[in-house]
Amino acid sequence: MAEVKLLGVSLSPFSRRVEWALKIKGVEYEFIEEDLQNKSPLLLQSNPVHQKIPVLIHNGKPISESMIILEYIDETFEGPSILPKDPYDRALARFWANFLDVKCITTIGKALFGKGEESDKAKEESSELLKILDNELKDKKFFVGDNFGFADIAANLMAFWLGILEEASGVILVTSEKFPNFCAWKDEYINCSQVKEYLPSRDVLLAHFQTRFQTAAAPK
Amino acid sequence: MAEVKLLGVSLSPFSRRVEWALKIKGVEYEFIEEDLQNKSPLLLQSNPVHQKIPVLIHNGKPISESMIILEYIDETFEGPSILPKDPYDRALARFWANFLDVKCITTIGKALFGKGEESDKAKEESSELLKILDNELKDKKFFVGDNFGFADIAANLMAFWLGILEEASGVILVTSEKFPNFCAWKDEYINCSQVKEYLPSRDVLLAHFQTRFQTAAAPK
Repeated sequence: MAEVKLLGVSLSPFSRRVEWALKIKGVEYEFIEEDLQNKSPLLLQSNPVHQKIPVLIHNGKPISESMIILEYIDETFEGPSILPKDPYDRALARFWANFLDVKCITTIGKALFGKGEESDKAKEESSELLKILDNELKDKKFFVGDNFGFADIAANLMAFWLGILEEASGVILVTSEKFPNFCAWKDEYINCSQVKEYLPSRDVLLAHFQTRFQTAAAPK
Repeated sequence: MAEVKLLGVSLSPFSRRVEWALKIKGVEYEFIEEDLQNKSPLLLQSNPVHQKIPVLIHNGKPISESMIILEYIDETFEGPSILPKDPYDRALARFWANFLDVKCITTIGKALFGKGEESDKAKEESSELLKILDNELKDKKFFVGDNFGFADIAANLMAFWLGILEEASGVILVTSEKFPNFCAWKDEYINCSQVKEYLPSRDVLLAHFQTRFQTAAAPK
């Protein structure tokens, strides 16, 4: 039995975060693909509170929530650090990770998947959030310091999934005219060595989200 | 000039979290009371993204978001640990802190301050969340291990502020019949030595929230 198992969904940015952290550390793991329409007893038993992926199971003990799993991986396994060493830089990395993970994803999710007034309001708010990121990322390759790390991993949805979601939904939130620094960062991000070979297929993801938006738009 | 400053609001549970962590570590600090209707230039400049309290300023460097500040305090200052030492226990502490800080507070906020359908739905969801906490707290004094720590500090709103908010709003979410373990934990919590002397006055808080609910209910 593998010492480290990951219950996830291979197309999910949240699963990928954990996979990227395990790869940085060089930890071997067994990936167990979950069907979210028919969750496994192991998932329900491992994360009874949220019943969500990803869940890391290490020596039989489950850990939930992608960013908490990243902290656990960083504290448990040898290898390159995921969080910076300096406490102030760690606080900055956690700050941006939280901003990306909670604030941006919630708001952009409403902009893309919401309807009517809720979606319109979220589009305006998304623009404000993207402006903050655009300002922060001016002349920067990574969120904190010189290494790809905690906040960068948290940014994967914004850097890769967002563009595909925009294409599938027809809702465009990001343009290089409005957010040039964000776009430059995004292009560099998806081509950097830590990310490029570990991304899911763009075509598969696009087809997946196109089906999802078409199903949502179909008359009931 | 004090090395450690805290920009906060003395009635806020989020400010208190940081004060409690500083007291556990024995760190001296200057508390600067903010007026949220008229935020100081120092607050706006220290936390330009969220423009919210609390902000800890250590040697001139600002750190925002109460739970991120707690991690910073634990990593920076000597004294008793706020997070447990074991990585798995640390993950559990972060898990419950996140559940309390994000999930419970958002939902209970909507139940108490929301209107109509939104409030009704949030009341039902609050009941589910309280059931999870009630189950978790059976025969437990602290969330993780034998010491008052990270998750317990995150729980301060649920343990103390919630009862006062219920009284001020007239919306009762917690009864000892429905949630006996939660109520037993709550009584012990507000009387424990780490908390008791550092709570704001119940009467002052009650008057504050009564005014707030009356103002919200008044015809515009």
